[in-house]
Amino acid sequence: MCGIIGISSYPDVATLCIPMLQSLQHRGQDGCGIMTSDGKDYFLHKKEGLIFDVFGEKEVKKLPGYQCIGHNRYSTTGISSKINLQPLLTRSLNGWLGLVHNGNLTNTEELTKRLENEGSIFQTTTDTEIIMHLMAKCKTKHMPDALICALEQVEGSYSLIAMDKQYLVATRDPMGFRPLIYGKLNNSYIFASETCALDVIGATDIKEVLPGQMIVVDSKTNKLEVIQAFKPKKLNRCIFELIYFAKPNSEIFDHETYVVRKNLGKILAKEFPVEADVVIPVPDSGIAAAMGYSQESGIPFEMGIIRSHYQRTFIQPTQALRDLGVKMKLAGVSSCLRGKRVVIVDDSLVRGTTSKKITKMLRDCGAKEVHFRISSPPTVSPCFYGVSMPTKQELIASDKTVSEVRKYINADSLAYLSIEGLSKVVGNGFCNACFSGDYPTNIPLGLEKLAIRKI
Amino acid sequence: MCGIIGISSYPDVATLCIPMLQSLQHRGQDGCGIMTSDGKDYFLHKKEGLIFDVFGEKEVKKLPGYQCIGHNRYSTTGISSKINLQPLLTRSLNGWLGLVHNGNLTNTEELTKRLENEGSIFQTTTDTEIIMHLMAKCKTKHMPDALICALEQVEGSYSLIAMDKQYLVATRDPMGFRPLIYGKLNNSYIFASETCALDVIGATDIKEVLPGQMIVVDSKTNKLEVIQAFKPKKLNRCIFELIYFAKPNSEIFDHETYVVRKNLGKILAKEFPVEADVVIPVPDSGIAAAMGYSQESGIPFEMGIIRSHYQRTFIQPTQALRDLGVKMKLAGVSSCLRGKRVVIVDDSLVRGTTSKKITKMLRDCGAKEVHFRISSPPTVSPCFYGVSMPTKQELIASDKTVSEVRKYINADSLAYLSIEGLSKVVGNGFCNACFSGDYPTNIPLGLEKLAIRKI
Amino acid sequence: MCGIIGISSYPDVATLCIPMLQSLQHRGQDGCGIMTSDGKDYFLHKKEGLIFDVFGEKEVKKLPGYQCIGHNRYSTTGISSKINLQPLLTRSLNGWLGLVHNGNLTNTEELTKRLENEGSIFQTTTDTEIIMHLMAKCKTKHMPDALICALEQVEGSYSLIAMDKQYLVATRDPMGFRPLIYGKLNNSYIFASETCALDVIGATDIKEVLPGQMIVVDSKTNKLEVIQAFKPKKLNRCIFELIYFAKPNSEIFDHETYVVRKNLGKILAKEFPVEADVVIPVPDSGIAAAMGYSQESGIPFEMGIIRSHYQRTFIQPTQALRDLGVKMKLAGVSSCLRGKRVVIVDDSLVRGTTSKKITKMLRDCGAKEVHFRISSPPTVSPCFYGVSMPTKQELIASDKTVSEVRKYINADSLAYLSIEGLSKVVGNGFCNACFSGDYPTNIPLGLEKLAIRKI
Amino acid sequence: MCGIIGISSYPDVATLCIPMLQSLQHRGQDGCGIMTSDGKDYFLHKKEGLIFDVFGEKEVKKLPGYQCIGHNRYSTTGISSKINLQPLLTRSLNGWLGLVHNGNLTNTEELTKRLENEGSIFQTTTDTEIIMHLMAKCKTKHMPDALICALEQVEGSYSLIAMDKQYLVATRDPMGFRPLIYGKLNNSYIFASETCALDVIGATDIKEVLPGQMIVVDSKTNKLEVIQAFKPKKLNRCIFELIYFAKPNSEIFDHETYVVRKNLGKILAKEFPVEADVVIPVPDSGIAAAMGYSQESGIPFEMGIIRSHYQRTFIQPTQALRDLGVKMKLAGVSSCLRGKRVVIVDDSLVRGTTSKKITKMLRDCGAKEVHFRISSPPTVSPCFYGVSMPTKQELIASDKTVSEVRKYINADSLAYLSIEGLSKVVGNGFCNACFSGDYPTNIPLGLEKLAIRKI
Repeated sequence: MCGIIGISSYPDVATLCIPMLQSLQHRGQDGCGIMTSDGKDYFLHKKEGLIFDVFGEKEVKKLPGYQCIGHNRYSTTGISSKINLQPLLTRSLNGWLGLVHNGNLTNTEELTKRLENEGSIFQTTTDTEIIMHLMAKCKTKHMPDALICALEQVEGSYSLIAMDKQYLVATRDPMGFRPLIYGKLNNSYIFASETCALDVIGATDIKEVLPGQMIVVDSKTNKLEVIQAFKPKKLNRCIFELIYFAKPNSEIFDHETYVVRKNLGKILAKEFPVEADVVIPVPDSGIAAAMGYSQESGIPFEMGIIRSHYQRTFIQPTQALRDLGVKMKLAGVSSCLRGKRVVIVDDSLVRGTTSKKITKMLRDCGAKEVHFRISSPPTVSPCFYGVSMPTKQELIASDKTVSEVRKYINADSLAYLSIEGLSKVVGNGFCNACFSGDYPTNIPLGLEKLAIRKI
Repeated sequence: MCGIIGISSYPDVATLCIPMLQSLQHRGQDGCGIMTSDGKDYFLHKKEGLIFDVFGEKEVKKLPGYQCIGHNRYSTTGISSKINLQPLLTRSLNGWLGLVHNGNLTNTEELTKRLENEGSIFQTTTDTEIIMHLMAKCKTKHMPDALICALEQVEGSYSLIAMDKQYLVATRDPMGFRPLIYGKLNNSYIFASETCALDVIGATDIKEVLPGQMIVVDSKTNKLEVIQAFKPKKLNRCIFELIYFAKPNSEIFDHETYVVRKNLGKILAKEFPVEADVVIPVPDSGIAAAMGYSQESGIPFEMGIIRSHYQRTFIQPTQALRDLGVKMKLAGVSSCLRGKRVVIVDDSLVRGTTSKKITKMLRDCGAKEVHFRISSPPTVSPCFYGVSMPTKQELIASDKTVSEVRKYINADSLAYLSIEGLSKVVGNGFCNACFSGDYPTNIPLGLEKLAIRKI
Repeated sequence: MCGIIGISSYPDVATLCIPMLQSLQHRGQDGCGIMTSDGKDYFLHKKEGLIFDVFGEKEVKKLPGYQCIGHNRYSTTGISSKINLQPLLTRSLNGWLGLVHNGNLTNTEELTKRLENEGSIFQTTTDTEIIMHLMAKCKTKHMPDALICALEQVEGSYSLIAMDKQYLVATRDPMGFRPLIYGKLNNSYIFASETCALDVIGATDIKEVLPGQMIVVDSKTNKLEVIQAFKPKKLNRCIFELIYFAKPNSEIFDHETYVVRKNLGKILAKEFPVEADVVIPVPDSGIAAAMGYSQESGIPFEMGIIRSHYQRTFIQPTQALRDLGVKMKLAGVSSCLRGKRVVIVDDSLVRGTTSKKITKMLRDCGAKEVHFRISSPPTVSPCFYGVSMPTKQELIASDKTVSEVRKYINADSLAYLSIEGLSKVVGNGFCNACFSGDYPTNIPLGLEKLAIRKI
Repeated sequence: MCGIIGISSYPDVATLCIPMLQSLQHRGQDGCGIMTSDGKDYFLHKKEGLIFDVFGEKEVKKLPGYQCIGHNRYSTTGISSKINLQPLLTRSLNGWLGLVHNGNLTNTEELTKRLENEGSIFQTTTDTEIIMHLMAKCKTKHMPDALICALEQVEGSYSLIAMDKQYLVATRDPMGFRPLIYGKLNNSYIFASETCALDVIGATDIKEVLPGQMIVVDSKTNKLEVIQAFKPKKLNRCIFELIYFAKPNSEIFDHETYVVRKNLGKILAKEFPVEADVVIPVPDSGIAAAMGYSQESGIPFEMGIIRSHYQRTFIQPTQALRDLGVKMKLAGVSSCLRGKRVVIVDDSLVRGTTSKKITKMLRDCGAKEVHFRISSPPTVSPCFYGVSMPTKQELIASDKTVSEVRKYINADSLAYLSIEGLSKVVGNGFCNACFSGDYPTNIPLGLEKLAIRKI
């Protein structure tokens, strides 16, 4: 998963981009980058680390200009991570071009093979570079046209922002997998993955880039044009954005994230009630759903687990520390838990390892019973559209029954929201392949193995 | 405010100390340090920054040994901050000695004058160095005795841990201002400001260092001795530790922090009810009290404000950004606020500037009414016992009525918990000088001006 | 100018590469990189800075493997410098490939145009990337063959080392512009720009890679094969390597650098004698020639100028400091200069600005007369084969007579070695375009302007 | 050994101090610091590393003011090095005081014992702190008087500069062990260890601070006063400053360093001639003496060894590299050495290990004979006045004859300059304890062991 930003016609644009990228930090913490232009030259800085690690006064000084694109990356494992940082900047017949991308193409293998056969060379392992190759091979000097020409050849999910000397272009795939919105700040057009990034700078007139749309800003005239570049297909917006990924104060796909999550908790309480003394969220992911569960069930809500704000650590815990089970990130509040029957609510259960540790922590703090409630259906299939997930083998629900999972995490009870319950809250138009295994596009056989490495 | 740690007889003691200091990071974020000993030499590393900035693999390698003291510092402003980092390490007739200190002495002016007249030189501006001077002037080679001799001359608050080649000594002033607890991990004795630091490593047998007590661990024999070094005086434990400072999962002064805070919210709801649609906490400080207010009033609780986990910034926002009112730390969740009458709960209201911004943010997000509720009485007098606070002039409640403050922060209503309400929850034995102006010790006239710089 | 390294079959190869790159640091100080392989994966680290800035314990740990290529870069100005660091690593139909390059192609414009027209995209502004594009378009899976196929299309100078999973390949252009040598250390083959890099690790059996030769090491079998890949053309070895660039303890093009330089000084003394009291070198570039001048003329040699070993500075001198003429790098030794008639010897005179400052410094230290002697002919034309030089306009000798230059630098006399004198020392087979303007290859009209930016 | 700087009344004084400290970098490479004052506050930055590592734009910004002292430190081994960085800044009855010190006291043990018995605490292990303690105990508010009062109690060597809000004071011990000079730049007074630091900024009117003198600059009036604070004793200027330590372009103790060194080489040639083909210096320490040897003997001088300018390394060479004998710092120039009878000249021979390696390197490069010539007498006794040296046991000449040393370093012949020869060049008034064992002050028995750690 990644966060992307695009800004046109704003003085000292890098200083505006930084708080926006910071507000999208939850979409990617492994690296980030900003590329600016003053209409003549391009300036690029990208590095592994969080925004405040990567961008200080010194770096900002080296990013002059009024136009920019920015990126937060949730990087894959392995040696290649550094080369894959974005924005990607390439030169072709049409001059220099920068690109930032959130999403995942599903026909990369075929495209790569074709390009390699034509003698192309690759310097990253990103989908983004493939798109730039395709653009360079389109016989047009007009960047938005080249982008359309390239995207007509790809399958899968993409929200992306491209920038050359004349244009800033934002577009979203015809199934609408990933979010992308835009607004205005004074005379500038601002693009971002989520509304929270526009709220932080006070941008207004916020709208969705609709599936298949392309928004073209001409930096010479500061005119914005909305083009329906691709025929919209059946809507397949990512349900996981609403369940977990987006920030609680963002509005995603015309839904208010926080409200959706609370309602999922309410339906969950209706579907799987339990006699208990207290409802506890796994912070921060389960807070809204736990609130909903509490309100619907009437069982009191408590912040029975606290999360450290200083959890980053650069020291490998020694074996001794590991044996002590040093818990650096989450801590139970015994006074909420001692002697209580606890409902613990989280948004999802992926491998089961964290849930197992949480159950143990709750019992160590004195909980009498632990009832795990998950505000989404069992995750049984990996995502090929941009959410980083383990392989099918590692998804505990892919080959274990609910009862077996319960046993593994050592809870007194475990229940997941039903797919129907989920639909009741969000309606139609969502990709739920991770819960159903029904992928809305072809998935090449070889791709599944790579699931964990491609984002 | 500061956080302190002491550990005896644990192999690779620095690696154990680091997660403990991390769990006390809320007590001081400006600098930190660890001093270890292998029984022969001393090793010290201290630097400005958070634990994970200051201590990496490389630094830990240079801190061998089995005994240590550690410190988190909430530093004062100005050039002197770097020289005041702790542990402080000095050499005297009795050899090398390390000290970490949480608290604030009130007769430093007089002590400093006396020492300077005797020809002493100072290399820091800390109380801690004064104690070390006094120890060096006591005619004893026995470190615990020297510490007693020195502390008999001081007034004010201190929880401190001293370490030389033979002893690890922890002590707490006879009024018990600051917390200090200890426990066991295998054969090691572990001292810390709060229980959360012992929980994180799984230490057991946790007890308070009682006011006036001195705990002496002989590192040669690993024997622990409890001495009533000073006659306990009237208890004056810091009420602010319970209201705000300590972690919600810590037990402080025999009270469960989270429960206390929730009960403060309940009493507040009884004392100052209001017709409203939703109770919102200021995160994270107001969460428990807001929960109590909600439970007592029956008004639904919502997480209507979210706090960024990545708020650190090394870039000074430009004036342009400041004019945009870029809000990097707190963000409102419109879906909880739009059209609602909002009760917003915080633990305290100091200068009023943050509360004013929060009110504006809530209204910007659509709140119809904003009712501010503070789960402590008006803060009218600065603290001279270790809590960093503005001068009296800057404390908005020191010269404004509640109604004037309400107007300043632009809320529809404002109410503070009464001193009586506070007592109902916590009982007796607390210093509440910040609310009452009744200081339990003499305060030299000159000190008030320094309030903000002495911690 | 750059320095390149290649090593096959050596355990922990990165630790061997580092002292070698350090010994080639004089060939490029702006950035450096190492790429290793363990036969399965590739590991790459490159960054702006000197070797000891870029490679510490941590970086070396992330470079496992037994095969490597390394690079020191003398970077161009402007924003593109970071993206041009080498080794360059690209993926094509034939898998991943790494390349390091010393030299400069002269038909890049034409090649770039052709590649761009075919839809290629570029991520650097280096010649090296062009070669990699050409290789990818050759219809062969055999890397050495692809390299031959690519190089048949290029003109200009190159010494380069390529590495994929099977082969380590070193080659040198048919005119032999840049040096490239190899040797053995135990069972490993070691390639480097200069012999000093092989001496530092004690490698033996040192030979030149001859012009047009390709040396192929198969990492599976550890067999080395010497191929005459290109028909040698008229020898055009870079005379500047001998005059200035290579280290005094390197043997370059079968000449001993130090001896050549001393002999240039001797001939210079014969051609342009002068009555004087002392011969002084500009350190370190003029030392050997000054020695020769002194020995031939009988005028005593003195180290009348010393050079700081700590000249690196990250602080921009303020205008005040600039006005004071703070001289950080060179300092005169008054006791050698006071009242003396001084012969000052340097290897070349490019812009004249440094020579002007040196003359002033000598006079400030009391020199009575200053006679400048240059151990090479006037530099009148820029180099297009890999030596970084100013544009023709900035070369002071391009449009000024010797007498005008003398006046500009304010010396009492000035003399340059004659082209004939140069030939007497080094013989034939050298490119001396910088002195004569006779370029051994076609130079596109547009290129001259770029002279300073292409290396 | 250390380098010290003091500047009065110069705007943005830190930017002036940095090139000066850089020019004294040879006097201490382990750490450095600058303390400035704007007349109201003090600003201090000190850290381990070279000047250009420690002081960047950011650090300079935090050092405002017009008055400063600066220090380069050659640090001792062990954990205490960081705490010993200078300037030292302490507060006493008389306010804040900064001090920088070059030299070594010889009665520290006795002074420390006395101060500790009076209850003083120490935070460093430097002599400098002792002086500051003594100053605080003097009953005077006038800083220059306090400094005189303190220095009357010490024995040994010191050149030091003190600074408080009113005065900048420089003083030199009555035997004149260490150099200290001053000059003027516009209206500012500038103090430094060597003249090279004044030359670099173009200061004029350079004079010595004479033994026992104190120079007092009143920052309020910008008046300079010269006081003969202490009765001069028998002159004992450090002969090693002239032989090795000071920069070749400095004038030290009224002698021109370069000339002295060359003359030492000339006398050496007269005392110990040898049939040979070439005279080679060990760079850079032996250059001037080798030049003298060559001129006197008529044997040609050659730069047969070159020294790397990039020798710093942060990587521990692996055992493999060590076995290869990787030579990172010095490299032989075979073309000067092959088949030759070589006279190799160095300024001193301390442990013999480096000389042994050099002999081997020369032979590896083809030298037929190696004749070592040392331009100073055998070093037989450690220095207690500020030159870092090994213990007596480690000084190879302390218990080996010249013939035994020759055998150890494997030279064909070895000769040292005689003490008489040395006197011929420099005259009287020098401490030559390191060659004679005649110490000009009492040396406490215990001190010898510490020789290597006290500087």
